Amino acid sequence: MSDDNSVFIGNKPFMNYVTSVVVQFTTKGAKEVTVKARGKFISRAVDVSEVAMKRFLKGQIGLKEIRIDSEEFKNKEGQDVRVSSIEIVLEKTA
Amino acid sequence: MSDDNSVFIGNKPFMNYVTSVVVQFTTKGAKEVTVKARGKFISRAVDVSEVAMKRFLKGQIGLKEIRIDSEEFKNKEGQDVRVSSIEIVLEKTA
Repeated sequence: MSDDNSVFIGNKPFMNYVTSVVVQFTTKGAKEVTVKARGKFISRAVDVSEVAMKRFLKGQIGLKEIRIDSEEFKNKEGQDVRVSSIEIVLEKTA
Repeated sequence: MSDDNSVFIGNKPFMNYVTSVVVQFTTKGAKEVTVKARGKFISRAVDVSEVAMKRFLKGQIGLKEIRIDSEEFKNKEGQDVRVSSIEIVLEKTA
């Protein structure tokens, strides 16, 4: 899966990400788009995916797969910190 | 799947939820536990699941399925609001 078909969720306005997903499926003709996020942005990744599936591309895309993962590393204070991530794979259905 | 095997993620201290998951698998002998959350708590549900799988019950439980959904309703100002939810199903593997 090419990174061109990924949308990384961050701090920008919510609709920017929804639009990215929609454009990849429509203008760019992608068969799959992966919505990716880490940490607190995971909730937003679910929101973006739901709005794309149930409103903007209703009946045209569906959920293919959801993957979760986490990485552990040391923060500045030397403490072990675990950060979770999610990848929501959406696919064209019609 | 009985609600006894569900853990709803909210505002309580993080380890309360991890402990709930661990106790259901160990003391209560559950074969499956579903970690559920809505809105901003979705990120936390992923964190709880990851910590249970990779730290406390490493090698003993795994990810079975992840479901996402959303509901639309009107808020106090009469605007349509969509709230996402997640259900992460963990299962005993050993």
